[in-house]
Amino acid sequence: MVNTPLVGIIMGSKSDFPVMKDAVDILKDFGIEVEVDIVSAHRTPEKMMNYGREAHKRGLKVIIAGAGGAAHLPGMIASITPLPVIGVPVKSSNSIDGWDSILSILQMPNGVPVATVALNAAKNAGILAAQIIASSDQALQQKMIDYKESLKEKVAEMSRSIRG
Amino acid sequence: MVNTPLVGIIMGSKSDFPVMKDAVDILKDFGIEVEVDIVSAHRTPEKMMNYGREAHKRGLKVIIAGAGGAAHLPGMIASITPLPVIGVPVKSSNSIDGWDSILSILQMPNGVPVATVALNAAKNAGILAAQIIASSDQALQQKMIDYKESLKEKVAEMSRSIRG
Amino acid sequence: MVNTPLVGIIMGSKSDFPVMKDAVDILKDFGIEVEVDIVSAHRTPEKMMNYGREAHKRGLKVIIAGAGGAAHLPGMIASITPLPVIGVPVKSSNSIDGWDSILSILQMPNGVPVATVALNAAKNAGILAAQIIASSDQALQQKMIDYKESLKEKVAEMSRSIRG
Amino acid sequence: MVNTPLVGIIMGSKSDFPVMKDAVDILKDFGIEVEVDIVSAHRTPEKMMNYGREAHKRGLKVIIAGAGGAAHLPGMIASITPLPVIGVPVKSSNSIDGWDSILSILQMPNGVPVATVALNAAKNAGILAAQIIASSDQALQQKMIDYKESLKEKVAEMSRSIRG
Amino acid sequence: MVNTPLVGIIMGSKSDFPVMKDAVDILKDFGIEVEVDIVSAHRTPEKMMNYGREAHKRGLKVIIAGAGGAAHLPGMIASITPLPVIGVPVKSSNSIDGWDSILSILQMPNGVPVATVALNAAKNAGILAAQIIASSDQALQQKMIDYKESLKEKVAEMSRSIRG
Amino acid sequence: MVNTPLVGIIMGSKSDFPVMKDAVDILKDFGIEVEVDIVSAHRTPEKMMNYGREAHKRGLKVIIAGAGGAAHLPGMIASITPLPVIGVPVKSSNSIDGWDSILSILQMPNGVPVATVALNAAKNAGILAAQIIASSDQALQQKMIDYKESLKEKVAEMSRSIRG
Amino acid sequence: MVNTPLVGIIMGSKSDFPVMKDAVDILKDFGIEVEVDIVSAHRTPEKMMNYGREAHKRGLKVIIAGAGGAAHLPGMIASITPLPVIGVPVKSSNSIDGWDSILSILQMPNGVPVATVALNAAKNAGILAAQIIASSDQALQQKMIDYKESLKEKVAEMSRSIRG
Amino acid sequence: MVNTPLVGIIMGSKSDFPVMKDAVDILKDFGIEVEVDIVSAHRTPEKMMNYGREAHKRGLKVIIAGAGGAAHLPGMIASITPLPVIGVPVKSSNSIDGWDSILSILQMPNGVPVATVALNAAKNAGILAAQIIASSDQALQQKMIDYKESLKEKVAEMSRSIRG
Repeated sequence: MVNTPLVGIIMGSKSDFPVMKDAVDILKDFGIEVEVDIVSAHRTPEKMMNYGREAHKRGLKVIIAGAGGAAHLPGMIASITPLPVIGVPVKSSNSIDGWDSILSILQMPNGVPVATVALNAAKNAGILAAQIIASSDQALQQKMIDYKESLKEKVAEMSRSIRG
Repeated sequence: MVNTPLVGIIMGSKSDFPVMKDAVDILKDFGIEVEVDIVSAHRTPEKMMNYGREAHKRGLKVIIAGAGGAAHLPGMIASITPLPVIGVPVKSSNSIDGWDSILSILQMPNGVPVATVALNAAKNAGILAAQIIASSDQALQQKMIDYKESLKEKVAEMSRSIRG
Repeated sequence: MVNTPLVGIIMGSKSDFPVMKDAVDILKDFGIEVEVDIVSAHRTPEKMMNYGREAHKRGLKVIIAGAGGAAHLPGMIASITPLPVIGVPVKSSNSIDGWDSILSILQMPNGVPVATVALNAAKNAGILAAQIIASSDQALQQKMIDYKESLKEKVAEMSRSIRG
Repeated sequence: MVNTPLVGIIMGSKSDFPVMKDAVDILKDFGIEVEVDIVSAHRTPEKMMNYGREAHKRGLKVIIAGAGGAAHLPGMIASITPLPVIGVPVKSSNSIDGWDSILSILQMPNGVPVATVALNAAKNAGILAAQIIASSDQALQQKMIDYKESLKEKVAEMSRSIRG
Repeated sequence: MVNTPLVGIIMGSKSDFPVMKDAVDILKDFGIEVEVDIVSAHRTPEKMMNYGREAHKRGLKVIIAGAGGAAHLPGMIASITPLPVIGVPVKSSNSIDGWDSILSILQMPNGVPVATVALNAAKNAGILAAQIIASSDQALQQKMIDYKESLKEKVAEMSRSIRG
Repeated sequence: MVNTPLVGIIMGSKSDFPVMKDAVDILKDFGIEVEVDIVSAHRTPEKMMNYGREAHKRGLKVIIAGAGGAAHLPGMIASITPLPVIGVPVKSSNSIDGWDSILSILQMPNGVPVATVALNAAKNAGILAAQIIASSDQALQQKMIDYKESLKEKVAEMSRSIRG
Repeated sequence: MVNTPLVGIIMGSKSDFPVMKDAVDILKDFGIEVEVDIVSAHRTPEKMMNYGREAHKRGLKVIIAGAGGAAHLPGMIASITPLPVIGVPVKSSNSIDGWDSILSILQMPNGVPVATVALNAAKNAGILAAQIIASSDQALQQKMIDYKESLKEKVAEMSRSIRG
Repeated sequence: MVNTPLVGIIMGSKSDFPVMKDAVDILKDFGIEVEVDIVSAHRTPEKMMNYGREAHKRGLKVIIAGAGGAAHLPGMIASITPLPVIGVPVKSSNSIDGWDSILSILQMPNGVPVATVALNAAKNAGILAAQIIASSDQALQQKMIDYKESLKEKVAEMSRSIRG
């Protein structure tokens, strides 16, 4: 039996996928079903509108949207859906060192927030989506606590290796 | 008899109007009929979609769109309409010195250009719209040539006043 | 009967409160109970550690943290709690036009996301917190849908007033 | 029979040609005749003056000008011609990540607009030129509508390939 | 008997004069004759061309040019005249904190230098012009040495006043 | 007999070590004992708290902390320890050209300074630590004077090689 | 009996004093004797050289240097003295939002560190100087620990006032 | 017979020479004698002071100084000599994309100008030095006029090659 996806991961172009794949992977690690699609604000505005209007009806709980340059996808999706939208600024080839990607996702007007993460930080977008779902799912919240513990162990290993 | 408007001037919020009014005024000076409306990418996405789909059918030849912060209106309209879209980055109160406004309008991906003018330069947006219409209207092009001559005269006056 | 707060709103200094109050107000509008406190990463690190460790045990579902300059509070809280943390970059008096506030909240390393909103955008932080809670609360999600509709009506009013 | 060129494409140096060629190509795709030349504001100011003065007399309807660093060519041409001028900021080898190219093209004073496109976005400059000509040419406008449809199909293909 | 001016001070608009007047004043303090005019690259390109072509023939030894925003005057004058050109980036009302003014004056291509001074630093432009003339005028060079001594005395006064 | 370390060098990740090793090397050159560890503000907050609380008790006189991106380690350590803390902004792979690293270390609020050095300048952090210790250690101060003399000799060598 | 000053506080101009006075005040609070002077790198280079050469011989243990714009004083003093030099970037009237002040103090080459604090953060410069002296003075270090405790109490007060 | 050098070219490190060599070459092309040396503001402050004090006495007419990062050499030399000083911001390995180099050379305080050229633009520094000397040397000025003509011919060649 396949579970309904809880997180929709969309991006403006296939060229964003190598970055956005980190969100897919970490969410799978947390056992959260995802769906992935290409939805372009500028090339497929109607598809974007439909995606935004239907997302919560299809059972999605969070949307992760990645885009670069004048990155309008996260903010436009956020203008349509009642779901929390996480924006991943992608340092695409046409971006000015990522500044355009960040500012056009982050600086949303009052009324329409986008939960922005660091440049190219699709992994963190996935973790944030998991935290959002975990806020009403105790078993998942425990996984999150365990995950944070595992980070400590990695530092401990690095510490041992550097101190000889 | 009222002429059909040739230039549509839209902006994301009424608070952009003091800036955008300069476009209205200069286009009136050139004798070009305009229409003005508030169309918000983030608060009225459907209205925006309709506006973009209908603009060229209603006889508009150019659209001027002003917005600030994560300014998605010019780029989104440009994604829908076949008309040339002029973007005015507005230094709104929630903007970071205008950088977000500029980058989120200027840095459009391939396939969907926005003709971006300087920060708050709605007057130049109006002149550019007039130049676009004038490129197939010789009488208007002559007005543009005369306008440029008038700029010279203003400098000559300043020159006289400063040289005593 | 008082409900348990679902959103914890913290900030590094009382001087951040005029900005952060917008989060309190909008969450009250959505009928969501909040708690507010001053927690300084740099002046009260132990209090911050305790806050982060206890938050989810006390029933909080989201933490909103505001800070300016070298703004470490949102990221440090996020390093301790399993809850989603929303960061509000505050353009405080010691900030360089807000760039330091934004970058030191946004650019978190892999493993520890902060859901960053626009500069001074505490209202959007509140809406985002409501969206997060609403993702598992259908009645609240309907309120969010209604809220988005109300934004449209405001634009319609502006549109009427500008078109005469 | 050769048609008169409708779009003049100029650039400050032959080293800008690899970027600017995208404008030539897309305009040819739209069936629009172009002419190409090297015109340097700083090394051939008289040639630039002549170019600007004669362009509209030779039948050109739009000028596309590309330059990098302290990029004066687009703005100077715009100061001379009544035609709409599209500026392409080129990220040339002497540019500071493109910021100088962008700002010295975009930030024109009142009276003399340059329609600025994204960094290195000569393709978009070509599309914008086509949109300008299409605003008084219904057959070309239909081509533009078809072009936008073709962008959707490309996204649909990417969508299929990513969803397996 | 009036001496021939040695330094030409030009600016794009009368609104630049309050800044540029500092250059006039300091050059008069050094006993160097100046001439002042409004010459706009964008509004009076022919006047600018003529100014550049004639300057060295009329006996000028240095040109100081001030402009703001997309500031093309200093670089364009430098492209025409064999004289050294000093550029003053003016933080005009349409400038983005002065960055556009600085970059569009400073970042000139190989072959056409502009001697750029700090933002709004017309006084330093005047001193630099005096230093240039003084490099072949021993009496003036001595004045420059004396001027530098006078700076020391001002610091000594400040030092006394602060140390009580 | 091993001396007690006087300088603690910590960093957020093993990937910072190639940069931070310069601090270790130069301090050894000055004959100052150091200890090195991985301490992550975001992954091991408790370890960081302990480190900060114990550092001065274990005999350390200075702490050098390096981190990149949203770099909280230097500031957080400074909030806990009474010792002077030197921060090294590391241009890590997730950093935006180093701006985030610099601003999130430098812009500390009143009460909690971090002595920030240049981007990636771990060597200078080491020299600064030596200068701090030398301010109460005359023999070491003499070494510092000798070190500065040796810099002059290197320049003299370069001067000879370039002048032939 | 007057104690020998341990901290020299210098600045490029009397106009920097309103900012730099915070360093004087906090050091007096810690009971540390200071001396204050105007020393300009650009107007009194010889005085600066002498100051740097003599500082450690006169018993100073730390130098705090404040300057704005192209701020060379902290780095130049650091090139001469073996003492630790703390640089305060001042947002002076001729500074571009403080960026020039910060970068010209912070980005020192290898061999010559300046301990840079936040923009205008003279108070933190004073605290850092006290921490440096305290690293070999246990009584002063205890004062520093007490000072940090007092910061906590201020936050507790703010917390009480905001929570009603 | 060897002529006295008229232009002194100095730089902070041998690593700046590949950039600065362009100034040497172009000045030789103009037949102007130069001298070259390594003079470091931070490592050899006394040598720098002497260089600045003696330059005009040895017959130099212009000084060209190149440096990167916190680039103090041009401004410090300018504070000592009565000669015009041309500053070349070098994008050295420790520079933040050149911004630090530019701002710490350009933003000099009133009284002490540096004639700043574009990032890495040592060739333009050489041309500017030639223009300065030419302002009192008619034969050299004619060479400058001829040089500018040669730039036109190069553009004409590029124009021919691109137009086929």
